[in-house]
Amino acid sequence: MSAIERLADDLARLPGIGSKTALRLVHHLLKGSSEDARRLARSLVDLAEKVRPCRECGNFSELELCEICSNPRRDRTVLCVVEEAYQVGAIERTGQYRGLFHVLGGRLSPLDGIGPEELNVESLLRRIDGSDGAVREVIVATNASVEGEATSVFLEQEIRPLGPRVTRLARGIPVGSDLEYVDGTTIAQALAGRREM
Amino acid sequence: MSAIERLADDLARLPGIGSKTALRLVHHLLKGSSEDARRLARSLVDLAEKVRPCRECGNFSELELCEICSNPRRDRTVLCVVEEAYQVGAIERTGQYRGLFHVLGGRLSPLDGIGPEELNVESLLRRIDGSDGAVREVIVATNASVEGEATSVFLEQEIRPLGPRVTRLARGIPVGSDLEYVDGTTIAQALAGRREM
Repeated sequence: MSAIERLADDLARLPGIGSKTALRLVHHLLKGSSEDARRLARSLVDLAEKVRPCRECGNFSELELCEICSNPRRDRTVLCVVEEAYQVGAIERTGQYRGLFHVLGGRLSPLDGIGPEELNVESLLRRIDGSDGAVREVIVATNASVEGEATSVFLEQEIRPLGPRVTRLARGIPVGSDLEYVDGTTIAQALAGRREM
Repeated sequence: MSAIERLADDLARLPGIGSKTALRLVHHLLKGSSEDARRLARSLVDLAEKVRPCRECGNFSELELCEICSNPRRDRTVLCVVEEAYQVGAIERTGQYRGLFHVLGGRLSPLDGIGPEELNVESLLRRIDGSDGAVREVIVATNASVEGEATSVFLEQEIRPLGPRVTRLARGIPVGSDLEYVDGTTIAQALAGRREM
């Protein structure tokens, strides 16, 4: 296999990149300076060498205890549970959340053989239980999909006996959208969750 | 900048990969084995170290003279001119072409400051002229876009005085398509180019 084919093959293993796109990327790199390909290679090795899951929350970090967990100004009474580490960023970018996170590493999906043991559920429960009541609220921010909802119901049942409030993100009309294009289930949930003006 | 941000940044420089996709790719690599990221890195370094344009046709290869140019069974009387090296593969995969190639490295685009000097035009003309009449036909297979057409007209004017026939790929209805969904210009060209059954 040639160097071109091998790289195209490796790139095509990435999600959302088919074999034609992979080949285009290879040729883009070939047309550019060879320094671009080398820099990308260095960044990949760096990633493999330096980044690990945080021992507390499971978010990826170059530190053993991630920047958020080790930040003394974060509110330790609230935990926000997300499915994947990249969702931490989506919440952080709002600038509206000051608590800590817990990354599940996926969602319950019995058909794919993913049960609670395959996710960071035990570490979550241990973390809440071991806080001696310091964790007062757990926001379950799993996706608004069928599997995400099932995961949130399961987590609620596990967490509530340990003491903290269990909340979830509001369902409703996305800001900036036209009612005409919002699906019926979302409108129904927005109606049920309507608030005084 | 963290290792995650740096890799996401490098990936987002690639065409068709936005910053969100880049971040998803990084997290995909983090969730997989670190060997995946390292293998991708090795393939990139290999590409940068081994692959160069063929000194004859401009196609990318690990050899100084590419596999096609150095193959004694290829028909040296026909040259097929393509815009980009990845288009060589599209023609090779048909299994219907036995001649040689010449890669322009782009298309004429005065608005982007791309004239004949920015492309492998001089090497093409030298190659034809230096063959002492051995090159009998040049198939101009530039894209069927406005810029590709302009490039083909320019090449035709430059090549014809040197002797060889200058041809181009037929325009017509793509195989398997419904007339209803083919644009009018293509239908018009297919009508003009109609052939006896």
